[in-house]
Amino acid sequence: MIKPRVGVIGGGQLARMMVVPAIELGLEIKVFAETEGSSAAIAATMVGDYTEIETIAAFAKTVDVITFDHEHVPLAVLRELEARGVSVQPPSAALAFAQNKLEMRKRLTELGLPMPVWAEIRTEQELQEFLDANGGVCILKTPIGGYDGKGVRVVKTTQDAADWLSSEGLTRVGGSLLAEEKVDFVREVAQLSARRPTGEFRAWPLVQTTQKDGVCAEVICPAPGASDQNIGRAAEIARVVAEGIGVTGVLAVEMFETPNGRLLINELAMRPHNSGHFSIEGSVTSQFEQHLRAVLDLPLGSTESIAACAVMVNLLGVDDQNDFVRGYAQILAEHPQAKVHTYGKGARRGRKMGHVTVVSDDADFALSECRATAAALLDA
Amino acid sequence: MIKPRVGVIGGGQLARMMVVPAIELGLEIKVFAETEGSSAAIAATMVGDYTEIETIAAFAKTVDVITFDHEHVPLAVLRELEARGVSVQPPSAALAFAQNKLEMRKRLTELGLPMPVWAEIRTEQELQEFLDANGGVCILKTPIGGYDGKGVRVVKTTQDAADWLSSEGLTRVGGSLLAEEKVDFVREVAQLSARRPTGEFRAWPLVQTTQKDGVCAEVICPAPGASDQNIGRAAEIARVVAEGIGVTGVLAVEMFETPNGRLLINELAMRPHNSGHFSIEGSVTSQFEQHLRAVLDLPLGSTESIAACAVMVNLLGVDDQNDFVRGYAQILAEHPQAKVHTYGKGARRGRKMGHVTVVSDDADFALSECRATAAALLDA
Repeated sequence: MIKPRVGVIGGGQLARMMVVPAIELGLEIKVFAETEGSSAAIAATMVGDYTEIETIAAFAKTVDVITFDHEHVPLAVLRELEARGVSVQPPSAALAFAQNKLEMRKRLTELGLPMPVWAEIRTEQELQEFLDANGGVCILKTPIGGYDGKGVRVVKTTQDAADWLSSEGLTRVGGSLLAEEKVDFVREVAQLSARRPTGEFRAWPLVQTTQKDGVCAEVICPAPGASDQNIGRAAEIARVVAEGIGVTGVLAVEMFETPNGRLLINELAMRPHNSGHFSIEGSVTSQFEQHLRAVLDLPLGSTESIAACAVMVNLLGVDDQNDFVRGYAQILAEHPQAKVHTYGKGARRGRKMGHVTVVSDDADFALSECRATAAALLDA
Repeated sequence: MIKPRVGVIGGGQLARMMVVPAIELGLEIKVFAETEGSSAAIAATMVGDYTEIETIAAFAKTVDVITFDHEHVPLAVLRELEARGVSVQPPSAALAFAQNKLEMRKRLTELGLPMPVWAEIRTEQELQEFLDANGGVCILKTPIGGYDGKGVRVVKTTQDAADWLSSEGLTRVGGSLLAEEKVDFVREVAQLSARRPTGEFRAWPLVQTTQKDGVCAEVICPAPGASDQNIGRAAEIARVVAEGIGVTGVLAVEMFETPNGRLLINELAMRPHNSGHFSIEGSVTSQFEQHLRAVLDLPLGSTESIAACAVMVNLLGVDDQNDFVRGYAQILAEHPQAKVHTYGKGARRGRKMGHVTVVSDDADFALSECRATAAALLDA
């Protein structure tokens, strides 16, 4: 056995954070970045356009397996790589569901998994019927191209979606839209898991996630007050999704928890996910290490927690100046327990610039200390 | 404040392990390596001879501070860098003591610190007198150039050191030798600490170290059964050494514990040290993160332990074939709690190829699981 070589398409912070366990485990990691000076520049061996099959194929020749920092590589490119014998993990057959929310809803329905009420929408009439049947409001999504709140709208009348439902608009999003009931939820939770091509599966504890403007803001592990029933149910949902869709590597299942305690699948991510950053310090095996192990079909590590509680707060860009370097020293001095991660990106409002994690057996301390550190960096 | 840039001279595993917190903290790290394909190759921006002042000076221009993977850079080179305005951390004035064990003993004596009985030896007669006064046996060391058991001998007669005491031999080692009493110790311990140029100092818990053939083999944190008195005393010894010698960055103080509970300073290392690898998973702040913070004069992180016990076992090369990749997958499967680190080095007998750490609130489990994982990798 030679030293395994992992190739990551995409040079964002997820690729950056995969570099760490590659160094620790002694794996070779190569990143295909879109631009020079990417977040994962330290491991970037090629810079180019990931939609060009020959460029990606040349990169693939330098590694043993191809995996991803994002879900935007065209399926046609991935299928061609697979046809040429490249190991793509997760495989194109799984990523097809990550790239199309309508196909994902159809497949999850076949698998009998709990979800919001949903429908495929091609016309104003279909949308009106869905609104009428679901309390006059719905979440309308473009099946392709949406993430972090983009391509998602709260819709109360067909006028709210007139642009998407025009013939041009429909063509742009693939011919139809996805309407989902606006779930009355008490909170959002996420189930992080990993699966190897040969089937081994492991789940982390269920976490509570808080979104702000459609972007992940805060994660608490484990989800406070979660029932044993939901903890087990969430892990089982993730297993059925991973096996049913053929996901390899890390899978994050974002779910709504309803007032009566039901869990309804909201979104899937087939890669390390913002809801799993807590695991870097909070778990025996981080999601980034686990992802590398899984895509290489190496045995998975323990997903046990290091302490009773881990809290992660995102550092979202406040403006085009604050890169969280101002005030950095003083904030480190005031928060010696906080683990501050920055992604080496230029400042931009709303951009994911970094995150802070605090791990402690004292859940109140972890929460207040993590929030205070992040707030100080945001205000600096 | 711009993004701090750290330059590390030396491309070994210590530089490799510094890359991880640099990625996490968002610092820029550049490594000056001796050879292509070094352990820290991922961050190597220059390859060359660290004894050439102009080469090192060119490297220094690309970073904000120079620090080290090893203690072998000639003092003349470091002093010239400092004369040109480069921030060298730890400074040459401190490294002078790391590079010369005789100067170190003299300085520690001035500082009133506990040590084995020692003497400077220039002649056979002086050695015989030292042997006569110390039970007929001593540890004889070359003041410069020794590490990991090299340049150290157990001596019972002047004949045992005839080569070193020849005029040629003495010239080679700097004109004299260091004789130390052979301490009757119950175990060896090490005190890891870090200090910033502006004075902030933090110590980790005292650890127990076990050497094999003069090389670190196993570390247990905290040192089992250490008295509160010795825990406090060890940290105080480290503080006096760091302040008295002007060490910045990580300092490891290796000590003997005698049957009556005394602590005697054996060796010093002014950089991250094998006795501190446990801190990667075992502490809130690892020695590698702390070293980067310290040399950049950033506030230090908490040195609290994550769990009740951390055990680290070195993976020393068994032969010129076993690079710990054989059997890797099966061993990971059998030890999901173990954190396996490999350094990307070619196999060589006795070489430090990697290490394993297990962190647990169950000290017996941590010890047995860590030993079992390392043994399996060694036997594979």
